[in-house]
Amino acid sequence: MSDFTQTVTALHAITIAVDAMGGDFGPEIVIPGLNIIHEENKDIRFILIGDESRIYPYLNKYSNLKDVCRVVHTDRMVRNNEKPSAALRASKGTSMRMAIEAVAEGHAHAAVSAGNTGALMAMAKVVLRMLPGIHRPALASVFPSMHGSTVMLDLGANVLVDAETLTQFAVLGAVFARAHKGIQVPTVGLLNVGSEEMKGPDHVRAAHNILSKVDFPGQYKGFVEGDDITKGTVDVVVCDGYAGNIALKTGEGVGRMTGHYFKEAISSDPLAILGGALAFFAMKRFKHKVDPRLYNGGVFVGLNGVCVKSHGGTDALGFSSAVRLATQLARQGYVKKVADEINRLMSQDSFLSQGTYEG
Amino acid sequence: MSDFTQTVTALHAITIAVDAMGGDFGPEIVIPGLNIIHEENKDIRFILIGDESRIYPYLNKYSNLKDVCRVVHTDRMVRNNEKPSAALRASKGTSMRMAIEAVAEGHAHAAVSAGNTGALMAMAKVVLRMLPGIHRPALASVFPSMHGSTVMLDLGANVLVDAETLTQFAVLGAVFARAHKGIQVPTVGLLNVGSEEMKGPDHVRAAHNILSKVDFPGQYKGFVEGDDITKGTVDVVVCDGYAGNIALKTGEGVGRMTGHYFKEAISSDPLAILGGALAFFAMKRFKHKVDPRLYNGGVFVGLNGVCVKSHGGTDALGFSSAVRLATQLARQGYVKKVADEINRLMSQDSFLSQGTYEG
Repeated sequence: MSDFTQTVTALHAITIAVDAMGGDFGPEIVIPGLNIIHEENKDIRFILIGDESRIYPYLNKYSNLKDVCRVVHTDRMVRNNEKPSAALRASKGTSMRMAIEAVAEGHAHAAVSAGNTGALMAMAKVVLRMLPGIHRPALASVFPSMHGSTVMLDLGANVLVDAETLTQFAVLGAVFARAHKGIQVPTVGLLNVGSEEMKGPDHVRAAHNILSKVDFPGQYKGFVEGDDITKGTVDVVVCDGYAGNIALKTGEGVGRMTGHYFKEAISSDPLAILGGALAFFAMKRFKHKVDPRLYNGGVFVGLNGVCVKSHGGTDALGFSSAVRLATQLARQGYVKKVADEINRLMSQDSFLSQGTYEG
Repeated sequence: MSDFTQTVTALHAITIAVDAMGGDFGPEIVIPGLNIIHEENKDIRFILIGDESRIYPYLNKYSNLKDVCRVVHTDRMVRNNEKPSAALRASKGTSMRMAIEAVAEGHAHAAVSAGNTGALMAMAKVVLRMLPGIHRPALASVFPSMHGSTVMLDLGANVLVDAETLTQFAVLGAVFARAHKGIQVPTVGLLNVGSEEMKGPDHVRAAHNILSKVDFPGQYKGFVEGDDITKGTVDVVVCDGYAGNIALKTGEGVGRMTGHYFKEAISSDPLAILGGALAFFAMKRFKHKVDPRLYNGGVFVGLNGVCVKSHGGTDALGFSSAVRLATQLARQGYVKKVADEINRLMSQDSFLSQGTYEG
C-alpha cells in the first residue's frame, strides 16, 4: 500500500478515505458531496480511491477541493448486486477494500462508501477486525425525532443476539451519541413491545436486567416502544438487528407512503396547486425537518476503525451527511473511547455474573 | 346468562356484542359509532353491555339505532390500567367479559371492545378458547398501503414464536384477507430483514421452508421487508408479535412526527396558512387516505369466535371501523373457515415433517 504513504501528508488533520466508485452514481455524487464538507471545513483531507479516468472529470470542477484530495487509482470495484461472500473473496484491490485498508493501516481516520452494504460490512469486519471483547459489530445511525434526533442500533448487522451483546450495543450507542450529539450522559432505552418489566422476548428482558445494574456511559431508561424512536424519548434506542431493520424499513415505508398520497392529493386539484405554491417556503422547512438525506450514513460500530455506509441511491447532499458523520466520529476519537468503555463494562461483576457469551 | 336469551331475538341476522364501557370515552363514542354502522346496514343487531345509566343518555338520541339494540346492564367494568392477570381474575360480570361470553354462548357473532388490550386478550383466550390445533392466537389488523390495504399479523399477541406457529399465522391471515378484502387467493409474505433466502432469524427461515411447500389458502410470495407493508407488495404480511408490534408502533410514530412537523411548518407562515386553506379539499382527501380511524380494529384470531379490539382513544368514526371489521368477519364465517383450513394444513406431510410443536 505504498500508494497511501506517498499521498497522505499530514495525519494530524482528519483524513477520510472515500470509495469514489460506490453507490448508484459513483464520482458524480461522491465528489460534489465531498465539496460540501470541504466548504464547511477546509482542514479535512480526503483519499479518493477509484478509477481516475472517472474521478478527474468531476474533481477538476472543484479546484479548492482538489487541493485536499489525493487520488489513488484502481480500476477494480465491487458491484452493487454481488453476494457479500463472493465480493469479499474477490475484494483485493477494489476501491471499497482499499478505502477500509487506508483506515486499518493508519493512513485515514475513517472510511466512507456508498457501495454494497453486505460486502462493506464483511470487508470492514475482516480488515478492521472487532475491538477486543466485542461480541459482534452493529450498524448504527441517526434518525430525526420530534426533539432533535435519536441514535439507533443495531439496524441489521445481526439478526437476533443475546443479552450481553445487546448490553454492548448500549455502550457502543452511548459513546456514539456523545460523539455525535455532544451529550455527556446520553439516555438509553431498550426497544421492546411494551414498557412493563415482564414483557418481551427473553434476550431483551435479560439485557434489561444487566443494563439496570451495570455502570456504563449512558443513563439507562428501561424499555421503549417503536413510537419512542420518533418521540425522542431517549438519545439512544438499542435493539437487535432483526427488530431494528424491520423498524427502520417500516418507518421509511410509512414516510414514503405519506409523501405519495400527499403529492397525489395536491397535484389533482388546481386550487391545491396554488395553495402549495403559497406554502412553498413552509413546505421547504417541513421537508428539511424530515429529509432522509440529512440523516444519511450508517456506521459499523464495534470495529477497530470507523467505517460509514452511505445509502447507495443518495445524492451529493446525502453523501455529504455520511462524510460529516465519519468526520465527527473520527475527531471525537470514537474507537478509542468505545474500546475503553467496553473494557470497563466487561470487568464489572454485574456484567460478568450474567454468564459468559456463547456465540 | 339468561339476560341474553331474553334479549336476542333473531340470530340469523348478524348480532354484535359490544362492551359499551371500554376505552377512554365509553358510551359517548361507542353509541355514535354503532349508529354509523346502523345507517349503513339496518339488519345488524347489537347487544350493548354496560351501565345503563350511562348508556341511555346517548342511546336515546338515536331512536332508529335503539330499535336494533338490546341493553344488558352491568355496573362492573375493567379499568384501562389494570394488569391483565388481575383483570382476568376479577372479570366475572364485567361489560368486557359479558361481551365475549355473548359470543361463546351463541348469542352474538362477534364481540367488540375498546378496553384494556391485555385484559381483552386474556379473557378472549379463556372464554372463547383456541380453535383445535392452533398453537397461539395472534392479533391481526389492516393497514393502508399505496395499493389499497395490507392485512398484518401478529401485532403483539405473542413475542417470538416458532416456525409452525408462523405458518399457522399465514393461514389465519390469508382467510382474514379473503373475508375482509374478498380476494380468493391472497398473496402472503413473511416479514424479514432481507429478501434473500439465507437471511433472517432461524424461526423465520424455517417458516419460509414450510410455507414454500404446504398447500394453504394463500399464495406464498417469500420474504418481504418493512417497507413492503405500505408498498402493498402482498395482501398479507406475516410476522411474530415482537417484530410486528415494533413495526406497527414505529410506523405510527413516523406518521405522527410527519404530521407534527407539517403542522408546525404550515402554521408558522401566513402565506402557508392561506395556501393550506386553498388546499382544503385536497388535504381532506389526503387525510382520508391515511386516516388511522378508518383502519381501527385489531382482531384476536385463532380463537373459537371473533373478538375485535378497538383503539381506546378513538372517536365514533374509529369505533365504527372496528365494528365494521367484526361484522365482515362474522358474515363471512371467518372462524369456521379458519378451522377448516387449519385442519387441512395440519394434515399435510410437508407441515408434519417439520417436527411437532414444542411450546
